[in-house]
Amino acid sequence: MTQSKKRILDAFTSPADLKLLNDDELKILCQEIRGEIIDVTSKTGGHVASSLGAVEIIVALHSVMNCPKDKIVYDVGHQSYAHKLLTGRLSQFDTLRQYGGISGFPKPSESVFDVHPSGHASDSLSVAFGLAKARDLSGDDFKIADVIGDSSLVGGMAFEALNHIGQEQTPMMIVLNDNGMSISRPVGALVRHLGMMRAKASYQHTRDAVQELMEARGGIGQELVDFGRNLKDSFKQMVIPQTMLFEQLGIVCTAPVDGHDITALREIFETCLESPCPTLVHVVTKKGKGYPPAEENPEIWHGVGPFDPKTGEFKKNTSKAPKYSNVFGDAIVKEAEHNPDVVAITAAMKDGTGLSKFAARFPRRFFDTGITEEHALGMAAGLSIGGKKPVVAIYSTFLQRAIDQIIVDNAINRENVVLCIDRAGLVGADGPTHTGAFDITYLRMIPNMRMLAPSNEAELVNGLHTAMMLDGPISIRYPRGCGEGVPIPQNPEVFKIGKSVERRAGNDIAILGFGHMLPACMDAAKRLEAQGISARVVDMRWIKPLDVDAIVAACKTKLVVTAEEGVIAGGAGDGVLEVMEARNLSTPVLQIGLPDKFVEQGTVEQISHVLGIDGEGIAAQITEKLRSLNIL
Amino acid sequence: MTQSKKRILDAFTSPADLKLLNDDELKILCQEIRGEIIDVTSKTGGHVASSLGAVEIIVALHSVMNCPKDKIVYDVGHQSYAHKLLTGRLSQFDTLRQYGGISGFPKPSESVFDVHPSGHASDSLSVAFGLAKARDLSGDDFKIADVIGDSSLVGGMAFEALNHIGQEQTPMMIVLNDNGMSISRPVGALVRHLGMMRAKASYQHTRDAVQELMEARGGIGQELVDFGRNLKDSFKQMVIPQTMLFEQLGIVCTAPVDGHDITALREIFETCLESPCPTLVHVVTKKGKGYPPAEENPEIWHGVGPFDPKTGEFKKNTSKAPKYSNVFGDAIVKEAEHNPDVVAITAAMKDGTGLSKFAARFPRRFFDTGITEEHALGMAAGLSIGGKKPVVAIYSTFLQRAIDQIIVDNAINRENVVLCIDRAGLVGADGPTHTGAFDITYLRMIPNMRMLAPSNEAELVNGLHTAMMLDGPISIRYPRGCGEGVPIPQNPEVFKIGKSVERRAGNDIAILGFGHMLPACMDAAKRLEAQGISARVVDMRWIKPLDVDAIVAACKTKLVVTAEEGVIAGGAGDGVLEVMEARNLSTPVLQIGLPDKFVEQGTVEQISHVLGIDGEGIAAQITEKLRSLNIL
Repeated sequence: MTQSKKRILDAFTSPADLKLLNDDELKILCQEIRGEIIDVTSKTGGHVASSLGAVEIIVALHSVMNCPKDKIVYDVGHQSYAHKLLTGRLSQFDTLRQYGGISGFPKPSESVFDVHPSGHASDSLSVAFGLAKARDLSGDDFKIADVIGDSSLVGGMAFEALNHIGQEQTPMMIVLNDNGMSISRPVGALVRHLGMMRAKASYQHTRDAVQELMEARGGIGQELVDFGRNLKDSFKQMVIPQTMLFEQLGIVCTAPVDGHDITALREIFETCLESPCPTLVHVVTKKGKGYPPAEENPEIWHGVGPFDPKTGEFKKNTSKAPKYSNVFGDAIVKEAEHNPDVVAITAAMKDGTGLSKFAARFPRRFFDTGITEEHALGMAAGLSIGGKKPVVAIYSTFLQRAIDQIIVDNAINRENVVLCIDRAGLVGADGPTHTGAFDITYLRMIPNMRMLAPSNEAELVNGLHTAMMLDGPISIRYPRGCGEGVPIPQNPEVFKIGKSVERRAGNDIAILGFGHMLPACMDAAKRLEAQGISARVVDMRWIKPLDVDAIVAACKTKLVVTAEEGVIAGGAGDGVLEVMEARNLSTPVLQIGLPDKFVEQGTVEQISHVLGIDGEGIAAQITEKLRSLNIL
Repeated sequence: MTQSKKRILDAFTSPADLKLLNDDELKILCQEIRGEIIDVTSKTGGHVASSLGAVEIIVALHSVMNCPKDKIVYDVGHQSYAHKLLTGRLSQFDTLRQYGGISGFPKPSESVFDVHPSGHASDSLSVAFGLAKARDLSGDDFKIADVIGDSSLVGGMAFEALNHIGQEQTPMMIVLNDNGMSISRPVGALVRHLGMMRAKASYQHTRDAVQELMEARGGIGQELVDFGRNLKDSFKQMVIPQTMLFEQLGIVCTAPVDGHDITALREIFETCLESPCPTLVHVVTKKGKGYPPAEENPEIWHGVGPFDPKTGEFKKNTSKAPKYSNVFGDAIVKEAEHNPDVVAITAAMKDGTGLSKFAARFPRRFFDTGITEEHALGMAAGLSIGGKKPVVAIYSTFLQRAIDQIIVDNAINRENVVLCIDRAGLVGADGPTHTGAFDITYLRMIPNMRMLAPSNEAELVNGLHTAMMLDGPISIRYPRGCGEGVPIPQNPEVFKIGKSVERRAGNDIAILGFGHMLPACMDAAKRLEAQGISARVVDMRWIKPLDVDAIVAACKTKLVVTAEEGVIAGGAGDGVLEVMEARNLSTPVLQIGLPDKFVEQGTVEQISHVLGIDGEGIAAQITEKLRSLNIL
């Protein structure tokens, strides 16, 4: 923390202190919070742009609410850094997203002020509504605020909740943090296609109808109406389609309010929190607010690594190898050049998945559906039925949202969908909500599914090419971060289905490695060699179907080791055991993978080491196993 | 088929023949189809009410479309019986839902007229939209109609798709089959709470705005406007909130049209299919239309077993044992009487899951969210955060929609949610889209999850009571259909966590049975005894955590058999293997469960037999395994 003079922030002990500050002091506090966020994230990396955009919202909420009795629920909580700073975590803030440090998301086990571990979009309204019903049933009277971004609103789960909230009329305040990030996505349907003018007119009409209703109700209703009228005159009139949708669902909606005007926010929050029915405060913010580099490029500054706080220049990637996402992005463009049926789909992860080049090169064949994984997978099925070859690029953790669509819409009828699963395995600083721990298990259970796990970036290119040649559903999982620095094949090969490659000969034990665990397996084999243990290392390539011959051959050694970066329960190692039992092979097996607990944050290297799945850890697990078997 | 005179239906060879019929003949055809549906389903059982309600819609669609070039996509295809009869499946119709017969849902492998295996609600709009985009990219010009019920529209996936459809303006016709079945659920938010009059006014306003826009566009737009104006005068003016939502999303919406008026339907479909932008035809139908018993009780007649077509009386349940759903329904009421924190949630399956009694007894503590599994599980997390004990009763196959919410919203923070998983395992006539094949695998992979599998209805009552006493997420899986006829415990016991019960002593082999596979395991043990094989049978009770002591003891026999009604991949048997490998136990294992393919329709008994998982099959699998091991 570089601080030249005493800050209000440093004198702070709890959010209750906010009530002692006037608006001018709160404005100063907001600036201090911004400075702290930029200062710390420049070293730790983090979600800079959205956190900067939400500072005044969070300060205003805490200044009018009484947390932790009152509850603030964040949708995709990476916007909540200011909340962390206001609720007793200033002194630990420089450990943000670090191993053993504070989380980059709300985390109930970290603080009583954190309600819910929000990491996946669109879930907060359901959680907040459940909390509101629990409150009402218990006869409690605490206030609930839900802070949700416009991008999260297109997720179907948010709509399901709004519909229910509108029906039940349970008091809760929804703060729509509208930073316009969903403008390029389907959420803009109305505005983009029926014209802004009409939208404005209809909106006004609907608002007036609500006001009439509220006036008829009297009391608090009248108060809402009054502030609504006042706001209309004093704030910029922006209209987005959600506000009308809200009102039609029975949720009273305010006119847009400037999300960086602390006075206005406090006033409107105070009023809406008193409402006897659900309300939505439409807050317009600027993503990256207060930090020019982030204001200029909010998409790039969504989630970043360390940077120079003065210039906004990012610390350079020290790896010589390209990122897996970029390798995929280049490879899919090449495939699409040769095959006009190839189309690509992502769910609001165009840059993250490496699809930007594809989108630029084939705009008609590219679909960004917004944060709607279910629709993305349903749409993929339709494209396949129509003769296309849809490639869905998505993070492992978010694909959890669309498992049913993979099963029912794609697998039953063997649609030609290619699931390119990025961020499979450990993800580092984002921690438990984002770890790609489960995809092997939840895909392996699905009939008709084929599964590839490339062990380096060249294997990814070959695997993708193989997937292009095959019919039926197929998945390819690869990790976050950089490859191994191997040459990228210019003429990719087509893999034989279910055939592995031996990467290292050995006869004492056989390590069956899946995907990017291979380098660690090779490292472990070298370490074992030093102990006189000859370890074969097999790059299994396929999780499904498995290479039965390689498994049978492995069973002729003294120990079969399976290694994968996913949970052991139901994973590829279990698949190996199934094959062995079906063939009456009883060689001892050591299963290496992620444990049956949620993986904490830290660098991938740190976590791998702690979990004993780096080269050193694998070697140690193996020697221990051999000892327990009295082989060593 | 009881038919006294020659029917138009019998002369029918393809839907193209419909074009030769006039409206009066089509009306007669509709009556013939109704007769056939009632006649056949009275023997086979099936989805009677919704199929009867959709007859005119389907006849009208086929009479103006050119299938299979044109495509009709059905949302929850159990309404599609008329479609089956019109597309060459009359002669097989009496095999509906039977083993080896035609499916009760659209099934592409059964007919080129079936586009998509629709079994889970709310997915069709995404599939139809993907198909439309494929068509546009290929320069094809076929027509697409999507038939979707009002209950399916509250599902978030449908909203995600509508939002995208509205943005892209790809031509496709959405037929909203509004049979008012969602009136009691959140879809009615607007109408119920802001008042019908206001709704009417706003609706009119929005419609007028659309009409102005269409007039400005001219051409086809003008045509739409004209019919819209005409319809306004000639049809009943019903308003439901979705229509307004649609228009705000950029989808032109018609006034409500009588869904049993073949002339009106043909006219409006013909026009809308020519539209250059997406359109929604709001069709009002009566569920069960034409069959008085079904018209009177459409909820009961949603999905039924065999009945007397003359009286509408259902064939009596011959089992003396109660249904698992009812046992659960009674037990949860008792638990809730003792514990005021118990609340219950279902996603449009109040009757099916047995929660009707709870809903009547504790209306404030009961929540039917509609077909919104994601929201239901998010809401459960919120209720738990608020100190309640939410019990979510849901079918195994539909819980696939909410796996991410179980992981992120419930498991990470150990919320006190009890998942009561009905229809776990084989489900009979509904076939592959509805089989509860995957829940063991997709829950076992989740850290902090506990899992119970009761082996009979008494175990269910005790298991539920145990779940009530424990903190953290816990699941209980039980089958469709009737129990074993054992006495229901009046004072339920609390199970020891992770402890099994030996049901039969034996020392040659040990069968570790999970859940309702127990009776078959006991049967198998008896059969093996006749062959001189002494089989222990253990009721494992817990899938997670597993009873390690029982597994270790089992490994002292010659063969460990695991038996579960779920896929083997990642299932409980894999869990047993994990335990054994971690402890260097190398006893041979036979894994019995569902295979790695989708399970076809048929009675549970038929399918169990075919898959070799009834008592006879289990015994046969065991003797074969022993032979392959040279033990026999």
